[in-house]
Amino acid sequence: MYFLAKRVGKYIVSEKLILMNPKFKSILSASQFTKSELSELLDLTSLIENKLQSRKQIPLLNEYILATMFFEPSTRTRLSFESAMHRLGGRVITAVGMQFSSMAKGETLFDTLKVLESYADICAIRHPVEGASALAAQTISIPVINAGDGAGEHPTQGLLDLYTIAHYKKLDEKPLNIGFVGDIKYGRTIHSLIQLLSHFDCHFTLISPKELQLDEKYISFLKKQKKEFLITEDLNKLSECDVAYVTRIQEERFIDHREFEKFHNYYIIDKEVVEKCKKDIIIMHPLPRLSEISTDVDDMPQAKYFHQAKNGLFTRMALLLYSLNINIK
Amino acid sequence: MYFLAKRVGKYIVSEKLILMNPKFKSILSASQFTKSELSELLDLTSLIENKLQSRKQIPLLNEYILATMFFEPSTRTRLSFESAMHRLGGRVITAVGMQFSSMAKGETLFDTLKVLESYADICAIRHPVEGASALAAQTISIPVINAGDGAGEHPTQGLLDLYTIAHYKKLDEKPLNIGFVGDIKYGRTIHSLIQLLSHFDCHFTLISPKELQLDEKYISFLKKQKKEFLITEDLNKLSECDVAYVTRIQEERFIDHREFEKFHNYYIIDKEVVEKCKKDIIIMHPLPRLSEISTDVDDMPQAKYFHQAKNGLFTRMALLLYSLNINIK
Amino acid sequence: MYFLAKRVGKYIVSEKLILMNPKFKSILSASQFTKSELSELLDLTSLIENKLQSRKQIPLLNEYILATMFFEPSTRTRLSFESAMHRLGGRVITAVGMQFSSMAKGETLFDTLKVLESYADICAIRHPVEGASALAAQTISIPVINAGDGAGEHPTQGLLDLYTIAHYKKLDEKPLNIGFVGDIKYGRTIHSLIQLLSHFDCHFTLISPKELQLDEKYISFLKKQKKEFLITEDLNKLSECDVAYVTRIQEERFIDHREFEKFHNYYIIDKEVVEKCKKDIIIMHPLPRLSEISTDVDDMPQAKYFHQAKNGLFTRMALLLYSLNINIK
Repeated sequence: MYFLAKRVGKYIVSEKLILMNPKFKSILSASQFTKSELSELLDLTSLIENKLQSRKQIPLLNEYILATMFFEPSTRTRLSFESAMHRLGGRVITAVGMQFSSMAKGETLFDTLKVLESYADICAIRHPVEGASALAAQTISIPVINAGDGAGEHPTQGLLDLYTIAHYKKLDEKPLNIGFVGDIKYGRTIHSLIQLLSHFDCHFTLISPKELQLDEKYISFLKKQKKEFLITEDLNKLSECDVAYVTRIQEERFIDHREFEKFHNYYIIDKEVVEKCKKDIIIMHPLPRLSEISTDVDDMPQAKYFHQAKNGLFTRMALLLYSLNINIK
Repeated sequence: MYFLAKRVGKYIVSEKLILMNPKFKSILSASQFTKSELSELLDLTSLIENKLQSRKQIPLLNEYILATMFFEPSTRTRLSFESAMHRLGGRVITAVGMQFSSMAKGETLFDTLKVLESYADICAIRHPVEGASALAAQTISIPVINAGDGAGEHPTQGLLDLYTIAHYKKLDEKPLNIGFVGDIKYGRTIHSLIQLLSHFDCHFTLISPKELQLDEKYISFLKKQKKEFLITEDLNKLSECDVAYVTRIQEERFIDHREFEKFHNYYIIDKEVVEKCKKDIIIMHPLPRLSEISTDVDDMPQAKYFHQAKNGLFTRMALLLYSLNINIK
Repeated sequence: MYFLAKRVGKYIVSEKLILMNPKFKSILSASQFTKSELSELLDLTSLIENKLQSRKQIPLLNEYILATMFFEPSTRTRLSFESAMHRLGGRVITAVGMQFSSMAKGETLFDTLKVLESYADICAIRHPVEGASALAAQTISIPVINAGDGAGEHPTQGLLDLYTIAHYKKLDEKPLNIGFVGDIKYGRTIHSLIQLLSHFDCHFTLISPKELQLDEKYISFLKKQKKEFLITEDLNKLSECDVAYVTRIQEERFIDHREFEKFHNYYIIDKEVVEKCKKDIIIMHPLPRLSEISTDVDDMPQAKYFHQAKNGLFTRMALLLYSLNINIK
């Protein structure tokens, strides 16, 4: 099975890494976590959020250096990591657009990483090619955090999404109906989040145009996990959900621009739609958004997408500590 | 009147902001300051300059993060802010060329700012569109410093210019004759400085080619403020000035390049010119300069343009403390 | 003689600088160091390497700011300096791609530097034009470290190479045979290293295609220094060497691409070649490498090119302290 294979694959990576540095843990895939590890991370994130209400810094990484190595641009993800490191008292060195430097002269990613590992204690890597972070974790002796690798994973986004849901809806208290709206086929944040949520008591309402439905391999995964799910094109089904996770239709996925035009305003979550939902629904979005959530929702208490972005800071602080095996107490 | 309207507009911004965060003050426009606020800022800047003579850091912002968000490049302004933050013990995160990231996917400035506000305690924004900083100050809950918004304002430049004049020429001790030379029509630093100086005892000598004379709205402003001024094309009038504020003819302002050619060496301040002026005149320039001040002036004691750049550091340190309402004593 | 002339030239620079700031020393050229200064630097670097085995930071530059000013991109050199500064507890401000900012408006390098000196306590400059760092050292009152100036020098690379050799092979204990392989004509790191090594007991084996042999002026230098050297095309001569310093054939040096094609796989150091060498030979490379060292060498104990990169960190920490005249004890 795809997920198990991936999990095993990633596990080998982790174990090889653990052998190299028994103290450290790389963050490569949403599938690498057990339920108890997830619970531990959620608790740690919550503790950090609480501590930051009365202070600006939790100085646990005072002498550490984080390298943010972004082989493709992603300003907000990069700044979220850098702010997280600063809030822990650490230092940051940054490489963006590295494709234009040594690698343009024909250097391999392996060599680039071997050199860069000397300069930092931990690194966050964004790369357009799937598996780049796993390669990094096998190559270098400092922990690696996958900050997005192409069509692959973006586990820190999945974890911050999970934390946001856990923050507003207690997990495992009663079953949660999680609604996904938009491009469910290509949205990698959805795929990561489904994997993470599969550890908890929830079922899924998957609302998308027929052409952008959940991929067969994820459907098999949900069946194997014995998770209920509803595949539908009907936005009205959102009224039964506890969470609405909305995604952008990604223009860059369509070869034929007329196809994109067809879908890009397919669902619009506006005030009227939200008012028909459960009163305590939370509206999430990984951002950036285009028109799929109207701005008249922004001031409604259900809108949580900007809080979600803020949770990225707490989550990444937790992951930095977790990777480096630094105890907060 | 243009200025009053602007001032009111900006004031509303400030007051809305003050309501959101009564402790903080955004720096949006040269027109937002009262005379007593300017005096307070000048004193604070002077205190900082003195303190930095015997030490490298005044660690008042140890746990704070400044975000420099530069939607158009301006290396020296950015580095001036970043150095100011470091000299106060704070941290910096930087976004340059952000137009190439999320916003390229169609995100609004509003959304970008809402996300970024989670990552920092104060931000300095440079944006090509006038009013972008005011929008930012209304959008986010951390103080905003306008680091230049298109044809709009660049208040920190205005304040460092004012500080430089105050440093070499006591304000309000006797009337000062401030000479402006060059492109008085389009030079936004001149417009900010005229507003700031209008609080003090001074009059203006405006030396420019006819086509680049001071705009009608600023002339009205000066009249309303009951400020004397002389509009002339004659560089000899500089001999009566206490300050010569020289600006670059900005090539990018001219559609017809022959027009630019006509003006760009119109006035050249060289050693000979300076020697005909008052002995204690100070020569200022917001930099970068081209040929409008010859390099043979650089070693003359009257040349203050590099000191002026250094004053940018002290001024921005003062503004960071002022915005965050941190007391230096 | 070229070297003496250069040395004198650089010396004048240094002395002028010393007059400006008797406390500081700029690092401009491999030729500026006496043997005793080199020994002092090697000892300091070694001390730093030892200290960093048990800790992450040697906080001697806590309130200092380093400006990395890269007028052409070189991510790894920049990050090496920045990491070095952070490991010393200091702060960093960074300007890359500055050619696109004020200088694009026609500003001179002199003016740019005069402004930037206000923002930092020391700077590392990379510039495409030879002599840019020397100009900087004459222009500004903070120490300048040359991080590479075009076809000129890259002294910090030379010093880290020297340190690597000193680390694995005791200098002056017995004569060392230093082999250079590849583009000996254009490789500026080779030229710096030859100058530095000429202070010590060693001779040279220069293996290159005829067209890429050592330039006449360096041959004269070696003769003047009474250093033995062998010029050859035969890679087998490597078997007598204690050090193999391999360089990339730089595509950008060839106008006719067919010329490049002819040379670029001329010598390949693979496992088989290394096994024919002395058992304790060390294989070095300034990186990035292409195919001139095969990856099957990477795991051999002789391969030291990644250690060499790491030594860049210790060397640059030593140079920051040395330039600023900060004593480690």
